[in-house]
Amino acid sequence: MAGSGERSRDELLEEYLKAAVQVTLEAGQIIREALTSEKRVQTKSSAADLVTETDQLVENLIISTLSNKFPSHRFIGEESVAAGEKCILTDDPTWIIDPIDGTCNFVHGTPVVAVSIGLSVKKELELGVIYSCVEEKLYTGRKGHGAFCNGQKLQASTQTDLSKALILTELGSIRDPVAVKMLFNNMERLLKVPAHGIRIVGSAALDLCHVAAGDVDAFYQFGLHCWDMAAAAVIVGEAGGIMIDTAGGPLDLMSRRVVAAGTLEMAYQIVKELQPVAYERDDSTEDTSHSLCK
Amino acid sequence: MAGSGERSRDELLEEYLKAAVQVTLEAGQIIREALTSEKRVQTKSSAADLVTETDQLVENLIISTLSNKFPSHRFIGEESVAAGEKCILTDDPTWIIDPIDGTCNFVHGTPVVAVSIGLSVKKELELGVIYSCVEEKLYTGRKGHGAFCNGQKLQASTQTDLSKALILTELGSIRDPVAVKMLFNNMERLLKVPAHGIRIVGSAALDLCHVAAGDVDAFYQFGLHCWDMAAAAVIVGEAGGIMIDTAGGPLDLMSRRVVAAGTLEMAYQIVKELQPVAYERDDSTEDTSHSLCK
Repeated sequence: MAGSGERSRDELLEEYLKAAVQVTLEAGQIIREALTSEKRVQTKSSAADLVTETDQLVENLIISTLSNKFPSHRFIGEESVAAGEKCILTDDPTWIIDPIDGTCNFVHGTPVVAVSIGLSVKKELELGVIYSCVEEKLYTGRKGHGAFCNGQKLQASTQTDLSKALILTELGSIRDPVAVKMLFNNMERLLKVPAHGIRIVGSAALDLCHVAAGDVDAFYQFGLHCWDMAAAAVIVGEAGGIMIDTAGGPLDLMSRRVVAAGTLEMAYQIVKELQPVAYERDDSTEDTSHSLCK
Repeated sequence: MAGSGERSRDELLEEYLKAAVQVTLEAGQIIREALTSEKRVQTKSSAADLVTETDQLVENLIISTLSNKFPSHRFIGEESVAAGEKCILTDDPTWIIDPIDGTCNFVHGTPVVAVSIGLSVKKELELGVIYSCVEEKLYTGRKGHGAFCNGQKLQASTQTDLSKALILTELGSIRDPVAVKMLFNNMERLLKVPAHGIRIVGSAALDLCHVAAGDVDAFYQFGLHCWDMAAAAVIVGEAGGIMIDTAGGPLDLMSRRVVAAGTLEMAYQIVKELQPVAYERDDSTEDTSHSLCK
């Protein structure tokens, strides 16, 4: 039975979720409008790692809005980390933010882009909000309270057979020849199983939403960041799916790697095919933010 | 100055376009409804080459509607060819039909699917209609009369530099290990240029529409069929883009290969990177329809 302390925690988390939804929708509107306008682009670590004015504008909006409402909360944001802030999770409530997931799509005017905001409390992911802002699909999840897309309950795929699977992955923006070869080797191994198909759409957060919605059977990636998967981890879990490490252990949010699927059987079959691609951890004390890519 | 004979040809083509749009919208409605229902699937040539009841139903609808209106016209349709009909272009007006482009997406309930209908007259492609039926985007093109999406004029990308390009491709459903390796080798070569990114969405017809719309800078594929590109060839051309052979020559509709881009400079840079993957031609006299895949 829930005591008054627990109710209060429940109410707090509901308040956090509402605030996240509100600022996510605001951010999404900015992105939607910017997508059709001239975009100013700076090059970050590689030709594919592009950051735009909008990326920074949106992250500032999200952090300032949430920190005004919840002054004791901490933040991990893609742009802040790129600017040199540390990417360390503590027990404090911590918002983990990707202002524009799918930056490369955004730069090219391809409308597959999303805002992603997750919240960790005592190092546990409690809620996630992802907004596919051009198609206006709002994905939300709160631990123990289900996952939804525009209010409709989400259910991940029940497929357990890899040879019947449609799988999403991403190439990221690393262009180191050895890593690129390994990314393609993994795709090749999966296609030879043979999996039904592999798709690459350019947004890890939306890939994970597709897993939650059962649009595809699985997703895996090496090289993504904690802000690409924090919100989605709650949404996928609440949709009945699972997210694990590429080596088969529990998900490690800072590890830069993930396998997500509707079923554990599917996830383990993918794990079996994958060969590791090494990336520096998000919480590494080395300053690697500019030598690695999203 | 156009004589009365020429006006009459113009009127005829306008009538053909209207008829194609009408039947494409009808077909799209069937597909949209079927996508959310239980789908019965037979396996064709490989695990990924799936054909559904809807595929056949839609092709029959399109062929019967158009042949009632235009009894002298000929047809090349994906399902008819799979059932053993020849894939030969003559001087007669010939409708080239893909009832569901993105069958694998369709089977998995992923909403990236399209109906594609092109018309060839005297072996020249004169018009194309492609309907992305879940997002309800209707792409149309008529030679000399522009290309449109839901009435808005399309303009392909003006990007000429491959290192700034977002590129689409498809893996198709072939799972022969040598061919699969070559498909990934080509992707690897492009990513090492480095291109900005590569995307795979599962529908060649829609890939080509994205090129026409300037959403991406280019598309290439080995292993696609004439019905995947006939309609799109008109749309891309009328949007200011170009479609050529993967070896750099003019497009050969039956050759199972294509490079499309907003500019010739972009197309040639891609051609330079690609190594050929051999597929039997569509108009081969060998009966290969069941040993090869779409």
